[in-house]
Amino acid sequence: MQRYIVKNIPRPNKEVSDKFAELGAATVYEAQGKTGLMNERLKPLDKNYSVCGPAVTVVCQPGDNLMIHAAVEVCRPGDIVVITTLGDNNYHGMIGDLLVSSFIKQGVKAIIIDNGVRDSKTLREFGLPIWSSSVICTGTSKNQSGWVNSPAVCGNTIVEPGDLIVADDDGIVVVKKSDIQSSMEKAVARAAKEEKTRAKIEAGELGVDFYGFRNVIKDMGIEYYENLEDIN
Amino acid sequence: MQRYIVKNIPRPNKEVSDKFAELGAATVYEAQGKTGLMNERLKPLDKNYSVCGPAVTVVCQPGDNLMIHAAVEVCRPGDIVVITTLGDNNYHGMIGDLLVSSFIKQGVKAIIIDNGVRDSKTLREFGLPIWSSSVICTGTSKNQSGWVNSPAVCGNTIVEPGDLIVADDDGIVVVKKSDIQSSMEKAVARAAKEEKTRAKIEAGELGVDFYGFRNVIKDMGIEYYENLEDIN
Amino acid sequence: MQRYIVKNIPRPNKEVSDKFAELGAATVYEAQGKTGLMNERLKPLDKNYSVCGPAVTVVCQPGDNLMIHAAVEVCRPGDIVVITTLGDNNYHGMIGDLLVSSFIKQGVKAIIIDNGVRDSKTLREFGLPIWSSSVICTGTSKNQSGWVNSPAVCGNTIVEPGDLIVADDDGIVVVKKSDIQSSMEKAVARAAKEEKTRAKIEAGELGVDFYGFRNVIKDMGIEYYENLEDIN
Amino acid sequence: MQRYIVKNIPRPNKEVSDKFAELGAATVYEAQGKTGLMNERLKPLDKNYSVCGPAVTVVCQPGDNLMIHAAVEVCRPGDIVVITTLGDNNYHGMIGDLLVSSFIKQGVKAIIIDNGVRDSKTLREFGLPIWSSSVICTGTSKNQSGWVNSPAVCGNTIVEPGDLIVADDDGIVVVKKSDIQSSMEKAVARAAKEEKTRAKIEAGELGVDFYGFRNVIKDMGIEYYENLEDIN
Amino acid sequence: MQRYIVKNIPRPNKEVSDKFAELGAATVYEAQGKTGLMNERLKPLDKNYSVCGPAVTVVCQPGDNLMIHAAVEVCRPGDIVVITTLGDNNYHGMIGDLLVSSFIKQGVKAIIIDNGVRDSKTLREFGLPIWSSSVICTGTSKNQSGWVNSPAVCGNTIVEPGDLIVADDDGIVVVKKSDIQSSMEKAVARAAKEEKTRAKIEAGELGVDFYGFRNVIKDMGIEYYENLEDIN
Amino acid sequence: MQRYIVKNIPRPNKEVSDKFAELGAATVYEAQGKTGLMNERLKPLDKNYSVCGPAVTVVCQPGDNLMIHAAVEVCRPGDIVVITTLGDNNYHGMIGDLLVSSFIKQGVKAIIIDNGVRDSKTLREFGLPIWSSSVICTGTSKNQSGWVNSPAVCGNTIVEPGDLIVADDDGIVVVKKSDIQSSMEKAVARAAKEEKTRAKIEAGELGVDFYGFRNVIKDMGIEYYENLEDIN
Repeated sequence: MQRYIVKNIPRPNKEVSDKFAELGAATVYEAQGKTGLMNERLKPLDKNYSVCGPAVTVVCQPGDNLMIHAAVEVCRPGDIVVITTLGDNNYHGMIGDLLVSSFIKQGVKAIIIDNGVRDSKTLREFGLPIWSSSVICTGTSKNQSGWVNSPAVCGNTIVEPGDLIVADDDGIVVVKKSDIQSSMEKAVARAAKEEKTRAKIEAGELGVDFYGFRNVIKDMGIEYYENLEDIN
Repeated sequence: MQRYIVKNIPRPNKEVSDKFAELGAATVYEAQGKTGLMNERLKPLDKNYSVCGPAVTVVCQPGDNLMIHAAVEVCRPGDIVVITTLGDNNYHGMIGDLLVSSFIKQGVKAIIIDNGVRDSKTLREFGLPIWSSSVICTGTSKNQSGWVNSPAVCGNTIVEPGDLIVADDDGIVVVKKSDIQSSMEKAVARAAKEEKTRAKIEAGELGVDFYGFRNVIKDMGIEYYENLEDIN
Repeated sequence: MQRYIVKNIPRPNKEVSDKFAELGAATVYEAQGKTGLMNERLKPLDKNYSVCGPAVTVVCQPGDNLMIHAAVEVCRPGDIVVITTLGDNNYHGMIGDLLVSSFIKQGVKAIIIDNGVRDSKTLREFGLPIWSSSVICTGTSKNQSGWVNSPAVCGNTIVEPGDLIVADDDGIVVVKKSDIQSSMEKAVARAAKEEKTRAKIEAGELGVDFYGFRNVIKDMGIEYYENLEDIN
Repeated sequence: MQRYIVKNIPRPNKEVSDKFAELGAATVYEAQGKTGLMNERLKPLDKNYSVCGPAVTVVCQPGDNLMIHAAVEVCRPGDIVVITTLGDNNYHGMIGDLLVSSFIKQGVKAIIIDNGVRDSKTLREFGLPIWSSSVICTGTSKNQSGWVNSPAVCGNTIVEPGDLIVADDDGIVVVKKSDIQSSMEKAVARAAKEEKTRAKIEAGELGVDFYGFRNVIKDMGIEYYENLEDIN
Repeated sequence: MQRYIVKNIPRPNKEVSDKFAELGAATVYEAQGKTGLMNERLKPLDKNYSVCGPAVTVVCQPGDNLMIHAAVEVCRPGDIVVITTLGDNNYHGMIGDLLVSSFIKQGVKAIIIDNGVRDSKTLREFGLPIWSSSVICTGTSKNQSGWVNSPAVCGNTIVEPGDLIVADDDGIVVVKKSDIQSSMEKAVARAAKEEKTRAKIEAGELGVDFYGFRNVIKDMGIEYYENLEDIN
Repeated sequence: MQRYIVKNIPRPNKEVSDKFAELGAATVYEAQGKTGLMNERLKPLDKNYSVCGPAVTVVCQPGDNLMIHAAVEVCRPGDIVVITTLGDNNYHGMIGDLLVSSFIKQGVKAIIIDNGVRDSKTLREFGLPIWSSSVICTGTSKNQSGWVNSPAVCGNTIVEPGDLIVADDDGIVVVKKSDIQSSMEKAVARAAKEEKTRAKIEAGELGVDFYGFRNVIKDMGIEYYENLEDIN
């Protein structure tokens, strides 16, 4: 297969990314029909992250970070770097404080890596949001080819360059370039609906009432008993 | 099998729960003959939790949270909600900020769920102690029947409604309703004994001496050498 | 096999340990030819640990901590206790607040245990750096023999008494007694080189330039494209 | 908690067990409302097992098989021994060729153990169907108390003495004593329905037709295209 | 996102598939630059499988097999069905004997499913090669939309409809439609080279000689010693 | 650390190895005080293996098999090759049909590898007993140094060159060179004792009787009941 590096990706305006970050991963995932969710093996390096930006994708051979070095110069402020390796389960310390410093210098907003990182203490001090599958010292080579800005598989999910990444403590969701507008609309609607539900709960209403579950429960033949002793 | 919801459970007085919380999971587990410990896959969402209360149990089909909604109204202040799913290993975001808000509104003291949660950042901000097997966005249906306040299996351990749950950073222990008094007595005795041991350690005494292990070691034929070079 | 307890181990001077701690696990691991790294299943109990000291080794039967009690009195200030069990994957609460108090009383600098700990909240409050494979209540017996200061396997890596342990948030690295000087020299050189790289990054230079990767990429036949549309 | 050994359990007649074995685990699990399925970590020691019988339950401390020895004499021909340990994830070689010989001598039909076995080669040669969570040599003690024929948790599922166990290559399902008749009826009905479906498939009919899924697909707005090129 | 079903896929002639099957997964994976390998969690249901064919892809929601039913009629003899679910780690019995019978009726050559199967005993008796991530009874719904013949992620690898799947006991490799000719040529060359190596080994030659490793070893400063005692 | 290759290892006479193979891994492990057992992640490639021989050890960098090539020529008929990699959890196809052919040519009796193998179908056809932690295609480099016949860690256990490896379906046990005679004696005694137990079981005796457990059970306060209804 031809290996390549693409220098430019489409980038939505900043307001769109900020709005998706505010809506959050769980809401966007639900709103776009339970699609785009990366596997939970990708964990945040620290708590209380909440970001969104267009994906610069990097595909490496496992244990080799040459293409990550090549990816630095194509990044622009606000980008989210999505790094993946081909096929297997093996984790290495693919990026550490030096590479992350380089990305910060370019203004990237976050790094998603479906593999390992090292220098985790320093990385947390940097404050750049990072999600990874492992924290591990194991070193890498720098002599295997790959791709920058090709379609990639990260966390079992396809990511194409310029897709939006919405990531927070709950998980990471991919919004396809072609779905940005429709996902936004549905997510905003969902959030508005949740706001109303939140108000009902605050007012002391019960979900079994305002969701209409009492009939569902009755129709299923679920019996109510006052006390444990009443069952036999 | 008949599905049902039981409205009331036996609840011990608050002093009993507070005392068990103070004794802690490890001490209670040991005191009652190394029984009642839930599997370690249940992890606290945040650090430094320490609670005890009577269990309201919920049994759902995996990926469906209808019965959790049904459980809200039977909870009373001080209860601990114990949520389980039938049989398999699959994790979903069974509860999020809305359902947890509903439980907080009822005054529950903690939630134990042998499955997944979402909106973890908000849940940590709420401050309600929560133990779960997973943090994951995956959504749920709301159309499958189950039980509230039936016997349940949580973390590989049987929990019956009204059993006491003692949970902290070390783990989660079930005290059976019928064992509350005897477990309390043994746990208090064990804690007192540990206090004395603690004082000995503070005074510079060694466990090999005050536990009488020097003879055990000698009887086993374990040899003491001054230096590594003395062995061959 | 003869079981034994060795009372004394070789200990390097404190400056050596302090210097290795400052260099950090990732740098030392790389500097000594990617050797000595313990398996990542050993996780720190808290964040931002960074220590180094000579290893006092303990080998137990799984689920029995008699030899840990026996190890307390051979520890000296600055030592790192390395506790392992024979062969299997089973985890127990091998040490808790009492045993850790005893080690602190002896002045140990850290504990590495390829098994479980309990009383984790108290242990974090103690502040002593601890790495373990599990946090779990499960109790132990105190009647099985083993070794103190024999060769041990911890995190899949051989540790001999007096080897230096360098441990931080990234992982745990063993420096063999016989390699202390050479590892130090190479690690210092590596750190100096990284410092220069860091300066280049700060100055806005790119790794593809200062590492000379542009030619590597060209020689591999990796093509550069301006935009996604240019590929077919 | 009181420890005990119960000598007798209710046993259905052999025809019932034989019929459930013929229906198989997947069918029975579905027929009784997706309940009773043990966790998939329990794997058969060999292929092509298919059995059913009433459960004799054994609850041990992890790593101790005293109660398994005590269980031998209460077993009767056709029984299935269900062995569990309290709470944790630790596996030991809880039974080997000697204990299994003893059970065979009693006429037991199968053994289900949510822990480890050893002497696996000999056990396969014996031909007795065995499901376990692990094959492992690790030895056991014989000095900890427990229960024979108490309620037990095996594979995350409650088993009570005399419940029917239906087990084959797909999994293990518990039929509660009180549900034997209703589960049988529903499973027979389900099997009959599957037989008809099988005939339709053999006749070349398609599921999208005989299940009526074409309308479901249409209503969901799923589009049909002739070729990949037709999508944009 | 638009959901769709594409009825036709490109299919290479049978000789190409047969030749790839003969070359085997390991050789093809290496020949095409260590790309296309699916994750090892996909395991064959039986031993000694060896197949190749064009991929019909199916993307489902986890726990719902509606789209698998929809996929049956687009399959042609010699196809390999590649079934995936969106995003998470949850396994269900997505296909059993009925659906597999339907696929066999269509003449499919194998099924690859990055999720669970049930009725495994019957499936092995059918003899159709199947790779899956799990054998599990857990049932499914039939009411969630998805895709047939869209790009899919299976075993962490992108599969497009009509890509060739080469699968045997060692693993599963995807050959992209556009790479069929070049991968074939390189794989044949690699196999020929291995044949020569095999002949050398048969003739008693050593790899350190015919690969020229003696100099590599010498240049690395690796020392040869006659006996263990010669090292110090 | 100095890298090296040692050409000769001590080898016991064949009768000793044959006798240990006959005694089996479980018996030897127990006889030598529950020591020497490798971790259960090492699984046999096929069933019904049973071997013993002296260890030729190989230590590689993960993902590089240069030292395995170097090890071929030091092997002698009856040896067992024990291959390990440094430190981490990453698995590659470290050996395939070519390297295994080379070892067979040298007359090795078995291969133990705490990492991955490929060409598994061919390897099973060869019939040489092989235990590995993974079956996986992922390729390797051949340019990293290591050791042949140094102390090694395999399956979490120290193996020194010339130690005896006893391996069968139950697991793999290391008998240290210095313990060969004492382990043999104890294992023979243990096997003899088991033979007597086997005869008792055949004669219909119960373990609770001939092990004297009735008193143990009585002393623990375990109660016997006739029927489930008798407990309250």
